[in-house]
Amino acid sequence: MNERMEKQLAFSLEIDKMKNVFRQTHLSNNGRNENDAEHSWHMAVMAYLLREYANEEVDIAKVMLMCLIHDIVEIDAGDTYAYDTEGLQTQKTREDAAKERIFSLLPEDQKNEFTALFDEFEAYETAESRFAHAMDNFQPLMLNNSNDGGDWRAHDVTAEQVYKRQGKTKLGSEKLFEVTDQILQDNIRRGNLRK
Amino acid sequence: MNERMEKQLAFSLEIDKMKNVFRQTHLSNNGRNENDAEHSWHMAVMAYLLREYANEEVDIAKVMLMCLIHDIVEIDAGDTYAYDTEGLQTQKTREDAAKERIFSLLPEDQKNEFTALFDEFEAYETAESRFAHAMDNFQPLMLNNSNDGGDWRAHDVTAEQVYKRQGKTKLGSEKLFEVTDQILQDNIRRGNLRK
Repeated sequence: MNERMEKQLAFSLEIDKMKNVFRQTHLSNNGRNENDAEHSWHMAVMAYLLREYANEEVDIAKVMLMCLIHDIVEIDAGDTYAYDTEGLQTQKTREDAAKERIFSLLPEDQKNEFTALFDEFEAYETAESRFAHAMDNFQPLMLNNSNDGGDWRAHDVTAEQVYKRQGKTKLGSEKLFEVTDQILQDNIRRGNLRK
Repeated sequence: MNERMEKQLAFSLEIDKMKNVFRQTHLSNNGRNENDAEHSWHMAVMAYLLREYANEEVDIAKVMLMCLIHDIVEIDAGDTYAYDTEGLQTQKTREDAAKERIFSLLPEDQKNEFTALFDEFEAYETAESRFAHAMDNFQPLMLNNSNDGGDWRAHDVTAEQVYKRQGKTKLGSEKLFEVTDQILQDNIRRGNLRK
């Protein structure tokens, strides 16, 4: 085996650890906490299925790949809950170090490609990154809604906090934000999300 | 919400159940059993990373999508272990019924698209399906090798059985089969796989 393939396989094995990074979101039917690998898989399938609702035309292969790799840094940095104010302050520093270590396992060209893709996702500036972010919001919203908003109730999250984050779905998909809004209003009515 | 979107979202929620379908493969570091969603995610990332080793030119977006959806039928049909002779006899009947039920949740055009993609994967006749199958073999091989062949030992699998299945990796990638062969020979030497 040559050095290039050795590096590709070392990275492939390393990212297995994504399956042990657990998120605050719970699986449907009030299941266990979801992990990053599952979340990424679910986002990628949903991105493909729902691509007709993207505001702008997107390169769907790029969106899917972005969905698949956007949380790899959490192997080192851990999952930062969307409404964890303290954690959010140190998130970038932790994730930058992780990005450097983990993507450096790859051959140089692929390290650069994955780093660029991750940075593009984070920057929110392209059609693909905006639609991928819409999935990153909508997929856990869907699960949480199916569980009567259990994750919001557990963390005593307010509607204002949720709207602040979920509002960005609009940038990627006006259509999915309309549904998001209906779901949030419904959860406020049902007392799952406090005003 | 219109009927089309309702169907897309019902399917999106239904496939959450993939995360509760557990395989015989264990995560690296002698971890727990892997589930279908994680396995599919891992295969899709590896397909992208290792696409240069495909025997023929492949539409990598199609390969990735194939990897992401190829096990959805197991929500109803369950996982059939690669070396479970009895289970393999009824696998097609079980999976056909599952395919019909689950993909019928989608709007007609997407039902047809996903069914065709699943059938293409199963038929092993296109470059994309052969490379996706190479991932379906190589990803668990990599995990199992990292655990000193624990999954083979647990099921008392023979080298002949493993070669019969893993040999098909050659159809998608001669290069990855070379590595497969090295890994298998090494595991035979170490007594993890009996002759």
